Amino acid sequence: MPYRAPLGDFRYILDHVVGFDQVTATDRFAEATADTVEAVLAEAGKLCETVLAPLQRPGDQHPARLENGVVRTSPGFAEGYRAIVEGGWVSIAADPEFGGMGLPMTVTSAVNEMMGSACLSLQLNPLMTQGQIEALEHHASDEMKALYIPKLVSGEWCGTMNLTEPQAGSDVGALRTKAEPKGDGSYAITGQKIYISWADNDFTANICHLVLARLPDGAPGTKGISLFMVPKFLPDADGNPGARNSLAVVSLEHKMGLHGSPTAVMQYDGATGWLVGEPHKGMAAMFTMMNNARLGVGVQGISVAEGAYQHALAHAMERRQGKTPVPGAETIAAHADVRRMLAEMKAQTFAARAIALACAVAIDMGNATGSAEWKARAALLTPIAKAFGTDTGIEVASLGLQVHGGMGFIEETGAAQYLRDVRVTAIYEGTNGIQAMDLVGRKMMDGGEAAFRLIEEVEQNAHSVRGAYPNMATAVWNAAESLREATEWLVAQEMNDRFAGAVPYLRAFALVLGAHCHLKAAMAEGEDGPRTRLARIAVKRLLPAHGGLIQQMREGASGLYALSDGDLAA
Amino acid sequence: MPYRAPLGDFRYILDHVVGFDQVTATDRFAEATADTVEAVLAEAGKLCETVLAPLQRPGDQHPARLENGVVRTSPGFAEGYRAIVEGGWVSIAADPEFGGMGLPMTVTSAVNEMMGSACLSLQLNPLMTQGQIEALEHHASDEMKALYIPKLVSGEWCGTMNLTEPQAGSDVGALRTKAEPKGDGSYAITGQKIYISWADNDFTANICHLVLARLPDGAPGTKGISLFMVPKFLPDADGNPGARNSLAVVSLEHKMGLHGSPTAVMQYDGATGWLVGEPHKGMAAMFTMMNNARLGVGVQGISVAEGAYQHALAHAMERRQGKTPVPGAETIAAHADVRRMLAEMKAQTFAARAIALACAVAIDMGNATGSAEWKARAALLTPIAKAFGTDTGIEVASLGLQVHGGMGFIEETGAAQYLRDVRVTAIYEGTNGIQAMDLVGRKMMDGGEAAFRLIEEVEQNAHSVRGAYPNMATAVWNAAESLREATEWLVAQEMNDRFAGAVPYLRAFALVLGAHCHLKAAMAEGEDGPRTRLARIAVKRLLPAHGGLIQQMREGASGLYALSDGDLAA
Repeated sequence: MPYRAPLGDFRYILDHVVGFDQVTATDRFAEATADTVEAVLAEAGKLCETVLAPLQRPGDQHPARLENGVVRTSPGFAEGYRAIVEGGWVSIAADPEFGGMGLPMTVTSAVNEMMGSACLSLQLNPLMTQGQIEALEHHASDEMKALYIPKLVSGEWCGTMNLTEPQAGSDVGALRTKAEPKGDGSYAITGQKIYISWADNDFTANICHLVLARLPDGAPGTKGISLFMVPKFLPDADGNPGARNSLAVVSLEHKMGLHGSPTAVMQYDGATGWLVGEPHKGMAAMFTMMNNARLGVGVQGISVAEGAYQHALAHAMERRQGKTPVPGAETIAAHADVRRMLAEMKAQTFAARAIALACAVAIDMGNATGSAEWKARAALLTPIAKAFGTDTGIEVASLGLQVHGGMGFIEETGAAQYLRDVRVTAIYEGTNGIQAMDLVGRKMMDGGEAAFRLIEEVEQNAHSVRGAYPNMATAVWNAAESLREATEWLVAQEMNDRFAGAVPYLRAFALVLGAHCHLKAAMAEGEDGPRTRLARIAVKRLLPAHGGLIQQMREGASGLYALSDGDLAA
Repeated sequence: MPYRAPLGDFRYILDHVVGFDQVTATDRFAEATADTVEAVLAEAGKLCETVLAPLQRPGDQHPARLENGVVRTSPGFAEGYRAIVEGGWVSIAADPEFGGMGLPMTVTSAVNEMMGSACLSLQLNPLMTQGQIEALEHHASDEMKALYIPKLVSGEWCGTMNLTEPQAGSDVGALRTKAEPKGDGSYAITGQKIYISWADNDFTANICHLVLARLPDGAPGTKGISLFMVPKFLPDADGNPGARNSLAVVSLEHKMGLHGSPTAVMQYDGATGWLVGEPHKGMAAMFTMMNNARLGVGVQGISVAEGAYQHALAHAMERRQGKTPVPGAETIAAHADVRRMLAEMKAQTFAARAIALACAVAIDMGNATGSAEWKARAALLTPIAKAFGTDTGIEVASLGLQVHGGMGFIEETGAAQYLRDVRVTAIYEGTNGIQAMDLVGRKMMDGGEAAFRLIEEVEQNAHSVRGAYPNMATAVWNAAESLREATEWLVAQEMNDRFAGAVPYLRAFALVLGAHCHLKAAMAEGEDGPRTRLARIAVKRLLPAHGGLIQQMREGASGLYALSDGDLAA
């Protein structure tokens, strides 16, 4: 499955859609000049095209496996990992003090997207490490930072997140893993964690587990949870991997996809760990990691959308079936329904990518300037980027399979793998339902202020181009206005009525933002460019779903509960 | 994965939604009394619950395999097949003259749905045989009928369809398989066929391949295609399996799902075959088989929707995560977003089932009365039932996986299998894009007459209950009216503009029909019943997508082609 890095789209979106120049204008990211970013993306793109893309199929066909307690990774993954760390791609955003590049999250997101298109299973490994580096930068002691971050940045060691337990999934507060003080500043961690991505491998010298556990005096629920660093090998006096810690991979899951990524059940039997941040403040620390991981997972969805699109397009441009309506055009890409699928795949992928990069810009601006407005923008966009990015991955991969016809269902073709791999992204790092509840709940605790500010920008922008693009501008403005009214309705509701409409609301919001990003792309290009033509697809074929979604949202919860448990089981 | 046959829903839909009493009132189906149908469904349901459902997981975990040219089926499949044929479930609709039950297609569809919920991979085998029996009843000589049909009806032998070749998928007319007259009334068939479901097995004494091939004087394209019966073993003078025919299973495909169903590449090397029907009229004969197979595949989608729904509901009614908004309710089914998913899954499954059974009733009425109106109704509903049924299967299975959270991605849970199995149903028997093109093309060659007649019924029905159900009736009437206008627009367009909007149009049509069926169910029940509460979900949460779909349809083809090949590849 050849992959071509979409460098042109990144450049265009950064320059004309998401205002990356604002990031470069800050002191913190002054070094992220256009030339630097271009060079970084080109270099990362080359790695993805040549080294990582060939690992996609072997990862699926030869899953990671557990042998005598040790994880053996898929063929080529060790070499692929080495190439990633040698390029410095784990640590683009990390603090230069620890060896990172100190580049913006926006650039990280673009690089992550390319790595995920090329080989999603392997990309998940550095994605976890990136989150861990960030959590440590924010919450660890100086000593812990000095010990761990350089090793994570260099890729010698890698990181994992340990939240879930069998009885504690979306309800993290139900976790039972215990942390007992050992009296020497360390803690004995005991418990079982499940769904641990990349819990072990055979290519890093150590594996650093960030584990949520409860101290003896920890309250029940999320307020009594603390965060611990629990390395596979305890660092010795020189900071090198020393004694083996009391933790073990119990088993690996047999998953629908993402076979190259080992997903483990982990057992901690009085394993030695060290507190990260304050006691009982583990959730807050974990959220630092999780928020960026949520954007990272949204980007994974876009990775797969791009990969599946390129794969389907290549097939459609080659396969011949029947007479097409276009003189001289003989491939199925010239059939209207196939062209519809391809056009919608491309338009939706562009929209999801632009939203994710807008979210990354907001994160960068929040970090660089401390601005509360930018932070609120980032917080608002994160669940949208996560849920819409991953839903887009699933939908585009499914369309890609459909474009292949019967061949799509045959594994050798590769189309099915995209769909199998990406399906979990709508679940992990908080299901897309949880994202939507976050959007209408926590992210609307400002009374909708951040949302209204963003919608206002969308409307102003549409208004400003109503002369040049009357149809598109009107459609976007109208949809934004209906979203504004819907948001006003939403913030006036009880929480459970909001939750009942959360998923359609998030989708409607994403469609408006996606159309807005397309419109901005069109504006920069003029009336007769490829991005303008693609924008018309987005505005005329994707955006219209908006109205029905808002209608669903306005139904509230009562009808759902009118349907009794007995009704559901009837 | 326990499965409970939805006998109550079948009974209710037959009695109150699709007018099955009209079928029973005909001479041909006079024996299909309410008691008989009830007994048949209960008996088939019991088989599905107890014998077939336990085969679902083994079929996935131990795929059919090819050993020295012979297909070895999944553990238990031979016994399951025997139980199906002993119950007479292959041949419910077959002519009693040949040993069939002579029951309506409506009853067959309900039985097929249950078998597909229990074990889709195995159910595909009798589904193919059913289609073959029907094709032979309509097109074979009396001699061929007498030789083959009783064996197919009894299940001693089974049947397959051989259409596709590597270069001839959706474009069947491009096939190259040749048929040379041997001078003794038989033909030598030579060529390769792909994607042959249940091409071989280890539990029937013979396998009857219906093969499309071209006679020496056959014109290019679909007009030069003839249909041949090519059995694995040539029947001897007594009609028993004799000499081995020159055909072979070359390989089995490695598929995303449906592992229990062997999908083969077949090689015919001068294999002996006999013409079925007239020379060069193979496509027409195949369409007899294919039209009912299309309904049958739509029903497969509903099978999986029902199975996945029951599976997800059982999980949601057991799993506890977090405090719910409902006092006393502790499972995740009480969370609004989970309840939304469950409610929508159930409402959409009901709608798809009602549409499929309405299609079956139309087929039965056409067969029993010869009425052109009923035949047109059946022809109109077939692509809708196929595409909407299978899309529903995919969507509901995906929601079912989502309801499971992280467990959904783990194969042992079983949720992923539903999604993997059902994905192909949107592709085989004509992709859902082909179905939509059939709807807006061939099925509108009457100027939309059959569609307008159906829409008129929907409007009249809604109008008649505007007093009792003002909100639902108004919503259904308005949507039907917008569908009528959309249909008027559609039939006035060039064919390729229709094709560009075919998929959203079919979906919009299905949503209106689904809401109509829900409204009829509500009407028969009164204001305060479970089906009325479910109808409100359908009308308020599913139907609203209708408007956006019609908008997409009205875009026509020009925007798609404005996007050049270069734009798509940019």
